[in-house]
Amino acid sequence: MIRVYLVKGDKPVTTVTLETKLDEFKLYLKKMKSYEEAIGLIYWDMRTGAPKKGIGTRSEVVGELSGELFKMQVSEQMGTFLDYFTAADVNEKLDRTMRKIVSECKKEYDRSKKIPPARYQEYVVLTSQSEAAWEEAKHNSDFASFQPYLEKIVAMNLEFIELWGYEGHKYNTLLDMYEPGMTVEKLDQVFGALREKVVPLLAAIQDSPHKPETSFLKQTFEKEQQKKFSLYILKQMGYDFDAGRLDETVHPFATGLNPGDVRITTRYLTDDVNSALFGTIHEGGHALYEQNISTDLIGTPLCTGTSMGIHESQSRFWENMIGRSRPFWSRYYGDLQRNYPGQFDGVEAEAFYRATNEVKPSLIRIEADELTYNLHIMIRYEIEKALFSGAVKVAELPQVWNEKYQEYLGVSPSNNGEGVLQDVHWSGGAFGYFPSYALGNMYAAQFKRTIEQELGDLDELVAAGNLIPIKSWLADKIYQYGKLLTPAEIVQQVTGEELNPEYLVDYLREKYTDIYKL
Amino acid sequence: MIRVYLVKGDKPVTTVTLETKLDEFKLYLKKMKSYEEAIGLIYWDMRTGAPKKGIGTRSEVVGELSGELFKMQVSEQMGTFLDYFTAADVNEKLDRTMRKIVSECKKEYDRSKKIPPARYQEYVVLTSQSEAAWEEAKHNSDFASFQPYLEKIVAMNLEFIELWGYEGHKYNTLLDMYEPGMTVEKLDQVFGALREKVVPLLAAIQDSPHKPETSFLKQTFEKEQQKKFSLYILKQMGYDFDAGRLDETVHPFATGLNPGDVRITTRYLTDDVNSALFGTIHEGGHALYEQNISTDLIGTPLCTGTSMGIHESQSRFWENMIGRSRPFWSRYYGDLQRNYPGQFDGVEAEAFYRATNEVKPSLIRIEADELTYNLHIMIRYEIEKALFSGAVKVAELPQVWNEKYQEYLGVSPSNNGEGVLQDVHWSGGAFGYFPSYALGNMYAAQFKRTIEQELGDLDELVAAGNLIPIKSWLADKIYQYGKLLTPAEIVQQVTGEELNPEYLVDYLREKYTDIYKL
Repeated sequence: MIRVYLVKGDKPVTTVTLETKLDEFKLYLKKMKSYEEAIGLIYWDMRTGAPKKGIGTRSEVVGELSGELFKMQVSEQMGTFLDYFTAADVNEKLDRTMRKIVSECKKEYDRSKKIPPARYQEYVVLTSQSEAAWEEAKHNSDFASFQPYLEKIVAMNLEFIELWGYEGHKYNTLLDMYEPGMTVEKLDQVFGALREKVVPLLAAIQDSPHKPETSFLKQTFEKEQQKKFSLYILKQMGYDFDAGRLDETVHPFATGLNPGDVRITTRYLTDDVNSALFGTIHEGGHALYEQNISTDLIGTPLCTGTSMGIHESQSRFWENMIGRSRPFWSRYYGDLQRNYPGQFDGVEAEAFYRATNEVKPSLIRIEADELTYNLHIMIRYEIEKALFSGAVKVAELPQVWNEKYQEYLGVSPSNNGEGVLQDVHWSGGAFGYFPSYALGNMYAAQFKRTIEQELGDLDELVAAGNLIPIKSWLADKIYQYGKLLTPAEIVQQVTGEELNPEYLVDYLREKYTDIYKL
Repeated sequence: MIRVYLVKGDKPVTTVTLETKLDEFKLYLKKMKSYEEAIGLIYWDMRTGAPKKGIGTRSEVVGELSGELFKMQVSEQMGTFLDYFTAADVNEKLDRTMRKIVSECKKEYDRSKKIPPARYQEYVVLTSQSEAAWEEAKHNSDFASFQPYLEKIVAMNLEFIELWGYEGHKYNTLLDMYEPGMTVEKLDQVFGALREKVVPLLAAIQDSPHKPETSFLKQTFEKEQQKKFSLYILKQMGYDFDAGRLDETVHPFATGLNPGDVRITTRYLTDDVNSALFGTIHEGGHALYEQNISTDLIGTPLCTGTSMGIHESQSRFWENMIGRSRPFWSRYYGDLQRNYPGQFDGVEAEAFYRATNEVKPSLIRIEADELTYNLHIMIRYEIEKALFSGAVKVAELPQVWNEKYQEYLGVSPSNNGEGVLQDVHWSGGAFGYFPSYALGNMYAAQFKRTIEQELGDLDELVAAGNLIPIKSWLADKIYQYGKLLTPAEIVQQVTGEELNPEYLVDYLREKYTDIYKL
């Protein structure tokens, strides 16, 4: 594969060939990344304010660019690059970053190449129709109309899993797409440990007579004031406004176009003081990750968060472990009061803090509190696992869903719209995604423990409004690496051990024992 | 070129081959247009609010996409398409639209192919450096530092003109890039006629004792109120907000991404009631054009305005002939007064109208009034013409500039920053662009005369706030065609004669004779 010519004298030109090839490959990768960035910007624009009559044509633009990007991912030229760079004698000469880049491209290439193009095209059409069907079905609480789509999607995923190959449980192959290296074995272990502690904790909370008063959270709060406070807190977190911006959308999101342009959005509910704020902090956490990826990785496939779970650990760390903490409100509650003059007269910081952490089993995942959220995820995990082992059929989903909600959370949906149809994920074929959310909570708690060991008392830092050292620590330990390290490597390198659910268990027990005086 | 197989029976399969080729070509064109649209959106975003730290990487994205677009324009595949579709026996089978598309692509292809790629690359680098040098030079009023760049740009343009070929004056080749078919011969004629009447008119205005009072235009006007009124007027004009949006930038512009997404921007000066408003109306005129191009042309190179001059005729028609008209203010002045409560108490509509049309020779083109604006353009036209005939050297520009400003407008710049260095155009090599602005005024006046013949009293329509029929007429007569007709064809088809400067002369004389009581 590698050509070695000995020229006059004694210096082989090997290195020249390798360097030339590397330069070519880097240009090729940069081009792919450019397409990705353009597509990312178009999506951001579509969601933040593109005029609706232009969307039809704009979607075709996205189609063109995505098509080109896909072609580059699986092109003959990519194949040639990969053959060259994966050959042992060349591969050993690559630096760590380039070796990882090659392995990422190879993974993507192999995965795409294993699916016959016509079959993949069918799947793309199916999921796009299915998302529309889901929207309609959810609106009408009509599972039967969505069932055939979901059956087909599950069947095609099973077919793809056979083509891709799998080790152990078939569902592992899907998990790996969102959380590289994650397995059913590991999830069973960590979710099991978590569930064992969370369920009795929730029961104790529900029995507690010390329920927080929350009525003051629901008043009328002007959008402009909410925005001002959200921007203020973002700034405190170290979000760089020269490398991002905050806009308004129905569904909040963060998008990292490049580390110098990481945009976030939030939604303002004028009858709720917390919704936009915590939405902003959550997306701000995602954004801090993307803003602080090493500039060395720009233009490569490593210039993004390493996994959904680690990404979610950052949004959830900032939202819950910082933003919903007592020291945070001891520091910022006065600012909040001044931001809404008169609206929190007579409400103490402690009361606001407790209200902000109310635990209440509910039907809808995205409205769940920090504690019960994990149970919503476990339900979905168990259902997905059962779907791909064949233990549960799509037709049985509504019944299984409702039984599990009763079992885990003690609530029952009155219809499928607020039950099994509530999330968009399955309609787009995103099986294996849900566990990331709860993994994020576990990673976050584990990182938090290490921060406390290395930076000293976290509560003191937060109570002093000293959030920047926290951000810098995270940037140094996690953010800068982008996708250079796997989730497992990050966790091991930062905390000295593998993923351990006990940190989240301890954190939740301590926090809620205190709030609910258990 | 075209393959004709006679198959069993009597039907040649020619049509199948032609149709297949057409489908391929249309897909190819649509792909090019998609790249253009993506690039257009990126530029819009850069100018309206992209975070500054992301600009470096974003520029490389633009570079990648523009490079791909250029490659498609001049590719072997494009060459094959053009050979096929320009062959007489095929060409005659094409419909009018496709024939025009082919000829547009051919023009672009030939123009690009005639310049050696390395030489063109040099030119791109030169103009990009030159724009930076110009900015610095303008800031320091230092022509000498800019002179070598400009000399090189002019020299390279002369070199390109030789490669492209020219008929008559060399400058004709440059004019044709912005106003297809326009020549020095024609411009000399129309500008000559215009100048002959405008100069004495300006002298009479300056001698008039009836100068409008303008002090009330300069108060403090809140940005939000200005925005509200601008949006209101846009709506009155028939600007479709489902196919566009208004944002804020330092330099106002309009950009047509596709007919369903035509965005405009304006600039709010809080000490001037008119600046943002007329900026909005001006860009709104450009936008009405792009919003109303026939949807049949989407995805083709004809889906844009036919020339800079015709485009400018629409922005100027709406800004000056509608927006700065007496009936407009008889209808909308009350709304303006209500928009700025108390700020125009005791100012009559007539006084506001007259103030809005104050004529005052000045140094800066972009701040010029409707009348003297034409003189600013003629100065630039004469200079460009002389540069490309060799009659004037770059080194002589400051002197020539100042002499002409004295001669035409009776004013002299105190430095080159407010003189010869004021405009960005030359630093980017955009010679031949300036005449479009004055052509726009002439086209606009000529169209106006036809509207009056066909729609009845324009003043009555405007005074009644009946702007939509005017927009619909323009859409029907001009906008829908996009680039399907040439500027000359549009003018002939709409007005029944070729470009005639007398309509503008008459319009200006009538308007200012009245305002200044000449």
